[in-house]
Amino acid sequence: MTAMPLIPLSPRETARRRLLDALRREGPMARVEIGQHLGMSPASVSELTASLLDEGILVAEETADQASGLIRGRPKTRLYFAETLGSVIGVWTGFNRIELRLVDSAGRNRASRHIERPLRNLGANELMDVLAETITAFAQGTGAHDVKAIGLACQGYVDTRDGIVAWSPVLGTRDLPLASGLGERLGLPVLMENDASAMAFAITQRNSDLRSGRTACLMVGDGVGLGFLIQGELYRGARFGGSEFGHVRLRRGGPQCRCGGRGCIEAYLADYALHRDAQLIDHRPAPTLLLPGEDAMESIVEQARAGDPALLNLFQAAGEVLGDAVGILIQTLEPDHIVLCGPGTRAMDLLRPSFEAALESQTIPELRALAAIHVVESSMDLLTEGVVIQALRELDLDLARLKAA
Amino acid sequence: MTAMPLIPLSPRETARRRLLDALRREGPMARVEIGQHLGMSPASVSELTASLLDEGILVAEETADQASGLIRGRPKTRLYFAETLGSVIGVWTGFNRIELRLVDSAGRNRASRHIERPLRNLGANELMDVLAETITAFAQGTGAHDVKAIGLACQGYVDTRDGIVAWSPVLGTRDLPLASGLGERLGLPVLMENDASAMAFAITQRNSDLRSGRTACLMVGDGVGLGFLIQGELYRGARFGGSEFGHVRLRRGGPQCRCGGRGCIEAYLADYALHRDAQLIDHRPAPTLLLPGEDAMESIVEQARAGDPALLNLFQAAGEVLGDAVGILIQTLEPDHIVLCGPGTRAMDLLRPSFEAALESQTIPELRALAAIHVVESSMDLLTEGVVIQALRELDLDLARLKAA
Amino acid sequence: MTAMPLIPLSPRETARRRLLDALRREGPMARVEIGQHLGMSPASVSELTASLLDEGILVAEETADQASGLIRGRPKTRLYFAETLGSVIGVWTGFNRIELRLVDSAGRNRASRHIERPLRNLGANELMDVLAETITAFAQGTGAHDVKAIGLACQGYVDTRDGIVAWSPVLGTRDLPLASGLGERLGLPVLMENDASAMAFAITQRNSDLRSGRTACLMVGDGVGLGFLIQGELYRGARFGGSEFGHVRLRRGGPQCRCGGRGCIEAYLADYALHRDAQLIDHRPAPTLLLPGEDAMESIVEQARAGDPALLNLFQAAGEVLGDAVGILIQTLEPDHIVLCGPGTRAMDLLRPSFEAALESQTIPELRALAAIHVVESSMDLLTEGVVIQALRELDLDLARLKAA
Amino acid sequence: MTAMPLIPLSPRETARRRLLDALRREGPMARVEIGQHLGMSPASVSELTASLLDEGILVAEETADQASGLIRGRPKTRLYFAETLGSVIGVWTGFNRIELRLVDSAGRNRASRHIERPLRNLGANELMDVLAETITAFAQGTGAHDVKAIGLACQGYVDTRDGIVAWSPVLGTRDLPLASGLGERLGLPVLMENDASAMAFAITQRNSDLRSGRTACLMVGDGVGLGFLIQGELYRGARFGGSEFGHVRLRRGGPQCRCGGRGCIEAYLADYALHRDAQLIDHRPAPTLLLPGEDAMESIVEQARAGDPALLNLFQAAGEVLGDAVGILIQTLEPDHIVLCGPGTRAMDLLRPSFEAALESQTIPELRALAAIHVVESSMDLLTEGVVIQALRELDLDLARLKAA
Repeated sequence: MTAMPLIPLSPRETARRRLLDALRREGPMARVEIGQHLGMSPASVSELTASLLDEGILVAEETADQASGLIRGRPKTRLYFAETLGSVIGVWTGFNRIELRLVDSAGRNRASRHIERPLRNLGANELMDVLAETITAFAQGTGAHDVKAIGLACQGYVDTRDGIVAWSPVLGTRDLPLASGLGERLGLPVLMENDASAMAFAITQRNSDLRSGRTACLMVGDGVGLGFLIQGELYRGARFGGSEFGHVRLRRGGPQCRCGGRGCIEAYLADYALHRDAQLIDHRPAPTLLLPGEDAMESIVEQARAGDPALLNLFQAAGEVLGDAVGILIQTLEPDHIVLCGPGTRAMDLLRPSFEAALESQTIPELRALAAIHVVESSMDLLTEGVVIQALRELDLDLARLKAA
Repeated sequence: MTAMPLIPLSPRETARRRLLDALRREGPMARVEIGQHLGMSPASVSELTASLLDEGILVAEETADQASGLIRGRPKTRLYFAETLGSVIGVWTGFNRIELRLVDSAGRNRASRHIERPLRNLGANELMDVLAETITAFAQGTGAHDVKAIGLACQGYVDTRDGIVAWSPVLGTRDLPLASGLGERLGLPVLMENDASAMAFAITQRNSDLRSGRTACLMVGDGVGLGFLIQGELYRGARFGGSEFGHVRLRRGGPQCRCGGRGCIEAYLADYALHRDAQLIDHRPAPTLLLPGEDAMESIVEQARAGDPALLNLFQAAGEVLGDAVGILIQTLEPDHIVLCGPGTRAMDLLRPSFEAALESQTIPELRALAAIHVVESSMDLLTEGVVIQALRELDLDLARLKAA
Repeated sequence: MTAMPLIPLSPRETARRRLLDALRREGPMARVEIGQHLGMSPASVSELTASLLDEGILVAEETADQASGLIRGRPKTRLYFAETLGSVIGVWTGFNRIELRLVDSAGRNRASRHIERPLRNLGANELMDVLAETITAFAQGTGAHDVKAIGLACQGYVDTRDGIVAWSPVLGTRDLPLASGLGERLGLPVLMENDASAMAFAITQRNSDLRSGRTACLMVGDGVGLGFLIQGELYRGARFGGSEFGHVRLRRGGPQCRCGGRGCIEAYLADYALHRDAQLIDHRPAPTLLLPGEDAMESIVEQARAGDPALLNLFQAAGEVLGDAVGILIQTLEPDHIVLCGPGTRAMDLLRPSFEAALESQTIPELRALAAIHVVESSMDLLTEGVVIQALRELDLDLARLKAA
Repeated sequence: MTAMPLIPLSPRETARRRLLDALRREGPMARVEIGQHLGMSPASVSELTASLLDEGILVAEETADQASGLIRGRPKTRLYFAETLGSVIGVWTGFNRIELRLVDSAGRNRASRHIERPLRNLGANELMDVLAETITAFAQGTGAHDVKAIGLACQGYVDTRDGIVAWSPVLGTRDLPLASGLGERLGLPVLMENDASAMAFAITQRNSDLRSGRTACLMVGDGVGLGFLIQGELYRGARFGGSEFGHVRLRRGGPQCRCGGRGCIEAYLADYALHRDAQLIDHRPAPTLLLPGEDAMESIVEQARAGDPALLNLFQAAGEVLGDAVGILIQTLEPDHIVLCGPGTRAMDLLRPSFEAALESQTIPELRALAAIHVVESSMDLLTEGVVIQALRELDLDLARLKAA
């Protein structure tokens, strides 16, 4: 969201901002819950919510109290965002693949679309044209006339401040000013994020435990990425990017990776890598546009579960690499939480034995014990969810500002 | 050649056998050269050759003496095999690929054919039917009515005594009695050999230096194989097979190999491996029937020579593996000669720097110095040549026997 | 410094704190420089420094102006800490080795000592007794009667909040409550830090560039450790510890590490590892107490520089591991700065070629370019300097507080 | 045995030679057994043995028939070599270690000695002086006045024809003409062999099964070596040497090896390597003269068996390397028999689980099934036994010759 000016908030605006943030994160809440969450007096909460309801930013919904028992509870009034404040479109660009999602201001999913088309060999302008057209067509096709912002999750190293893809394994160009390029074409602010960071953000937004301490989310799917959060905030490296942990070289002389290197974590664990190796084992057909779909991946997993020894070896090797990768995270960052997420967790049962053996052999037991490991089954949907939440929160900042009288 | 009975040769038959062997190996020779080669008196040579000419086994050809200078030499009479003693067909079965060659008794190439068709997923009988039909059609198509034997070179571990493919990466079945199965279908004796051994045999037949001491021929092409000779005779391991050196695992966690393992020598160096990795780098189209042809391989080599860094890395990694592989041969067997051969030598210029660095770092200098390394550029044609020579030599044994009066 | 109560500072105390911090970091400054540094008016600076001089916390020193030229500058008055406010002892515990340093409140080194004695096989109480006795003897021997605090740098994973060594490769015990144990024995507050973090802190205190953005200091010496800072503050992992990056396993099946694992970064790069391997190469004598001194390490470096091929290989392998290690840091954290430090940099000339080649082959060029790599030659002295600065800053907090009237 | 002239044997001498060979290999036999072994008529055997008894070469010993039961069998007369035909001394030179053994012509052990002294840093002449003195002192000390030959087993690559150590990890010199140098100093013929080849020869002499087909003996102990036999005859590589299989590099970047390389098989499995790593784990004392004795090795094995996890890991890693090494032998040579031998088999119980897992993962099942794996517990005594048998057989050649009347 490159063009938004940074005017400091007044104390009252800050209070509104905190209230909206809490609702965005926790979902609909009664006034008393809001007060508890923010440590605010009932009077202050009432006063703030009254004006937000008045401005049409929040709406009230009556729900039966969940308290069970003979005596029926009083209906409870919960507050949440109106759904009429404008919508955002979340976009993910993978390898020859685009995911789109339309979400209204109340966070409700309105439409989504999955598109496969060649992207890898496009030049910068061509690529931006294609993306802009795809987004426009999606908005028109879904009758979305009130789109306020675009949230864009990309594979690769993303300069999140300037909205530039510094490098990506799935795009043919370098230092691509995607946010400004799309912004100009669409006339909308565009917010950008690395896709693993976006998924990590979505996951930690849903689980408050993961927002305390240090949380490393290892996303396995179309590629392998790391979203790392310290106290709920995404870690930013040089040039405001995230991490390219999936391209840590785990084994010299390992398999070819699409980044051009060999032996990267991704070259064992990503869907494309597993599918490529399965092709060599049993001569299954090559995927369309060089990328295997969910059905193709499920079929590999099913055959392995049915006992095919060579496919079992494939997951055995992948699990070992996953264990080594998590071991590196523990030895380097000693996070409180490690979250394994992304579609690749579909095979966690096959990966687990060698994953655990490798993790055990790679880490010092005293240090391994400090990190809790979570597996969050999560489809690629969470990628767009992550950038959608970020975009909505940016828009909430505008809502928090008091209109000049 | 499973069905040939072993009746010992008489002394005269042995002398005939030695003479025929020498001609087969050295090509047409004058009587005086034959005498020198065999350490036989002119009288004995004359007597032997007279009857062989008489029986129509040998023919004489007059050639101008090659001695240059003012005084023209006397025309020289050279003797060689008649071309009318029957022909042999040499066959190579690769991955979804068959090479055929028809050769007459004078060793002259009469016809050859290259066929691509799915073989990998055929059952045993189906496969033998397909091969028998293919050979029959080739014989008919080339008008070959006097075929005396089939020489068959196969990828995999071949029981050369019983003509059984114990294991092969390119066939879906195990312990396949190919010699007897084809023999019954064709009504001809079938001699079998591992394909790398066949190429090693062909190469050492052409170069007498390589027939003294120990010679290890590393064939790189459709796969990687080793033909090892001690004093010109092929080394035989358990069950009369050769070697599966291409499936030595050089790197734990290396790339997937079509044998089902990972990190095999072949998984870096074979054509299919280089092509698979190049596909990931630049998204070139997948090969027909999963195997890249010579054109496809040439195109990779040309692009690398033109400076493509990722493709250069590919050959760099392959060269390193080649150096490590040769290092293992030196440290294990300390051969006098190491021959790098097969179509993969087409990229020797790209492989050489990392090949030499790896070889140097892997071996003890004093031991490395004992082995001479030769590069023999050689197409897959040499595979069928190897089995054709072996088959002709087997037939020569019959010619050496004196007909019962 | 476990027992210090946390009473919030008043605004005036906060201003004093900032002023003392700036002096501690930048060294003696004139009032005008202080004002520039803190963005304070000359009047405020004068008022604050007047009372600090009055309380005897600061002293003024007159120095000739450094402005060169014919016209001599006016003498300049610089302010700095009095040296009479009490001293601190910095201690480092390595493998069978203790370094001690006495520093006064003006940060001047008063005495230091190096002790070698068996520590590795001591139990918890025995070890704490030995350390307490060693520190007491050092204080007595140097006539230090005004020691106010101990700063302790340890190899291993240190819970810096509770002063516990959770795990260490050089101590035989686990979860050792060293700060409280030493604190009770000495009657002094004890502040603890991982040794690589202490060195990283010392280095970044000296260089303001390294305090902006993310800085990863890789310390190579007795062991290998990582101190990671974000905006000048040390990164803390779970349980307030740092990193055990030196025990990331770089090569499965690599050399034995003293952590019990194999193939750790340390097992190639640490002094003990290089010396162990050199012993095997040329049968040099084993070191006293199993740890090689600086002389022993220098001798290896000198012989390698003189061209000994096997010793050159040793540094070649170590440099490759260093490059891979830095590559992991870049791909994982993308820091703005990477600092190679510690005594191991003595051989940087020998390490550099393979370091650079490995770094280049391990990282994506676009990402590699984002991190600046610095080599800071630094002896083990910087370890104790780091904890001494931290201890002095803790004491400065007391000085910043206004005495109750 | 460099100086022995090669005069062809007469047919009668050849028969005597075969008879003596059979006795040397099988031990004392009755005439009827000799006949069965050699396929000779009773008359021929009687005639031959009569003259050998007459010449004092053989002696007869009466033994009770072993047939059990009520009816006691007739006493049986067995023939064997007289013990008065002269003796041989077998010598093994390891790392700073010499083993000596005196054996009489009947193959009976008369004396043996174990000596530790620095050898590694001696120059060529000094080393030969030391060995000559040591052998002379041993002969004198044991009262051996009839020594006819020396058999010398050396670590390293040995030119067995010319008696030259081309390269050795335990000697400081290269291309050492040890046979001629010692021969001149001692006035005796000296026969040389690589030590692993000597052990392989001794083992296969005792077991006729291992003399058919191809047998690879992997000796693990002071170092790691390979003795490879084809049909009972030692394989000879270039320059009549054996193999330096122990210095095949299994893992790039593996532990330092005493050959100067890294990651050699030996660097994991040899006694010195295991002891070096154990030292780092638990700080046990360094061995005398840098080489651990049998007691020191037994102590490591015992502690591991008692459950020490880090020492168990050591054997786990060593077993994995052993499995990979055997896998290379199978894939390269496909021998009928693989024999694991040498003192290192003392820990076979600890090595076995990871050995088997590695072997299984490294080899193609169909090929693995073709090789039988044998474990032969065998001390370093077998090394000298191997060269002693070879020396005795050389001397038997003289006995087979008929004296000129």
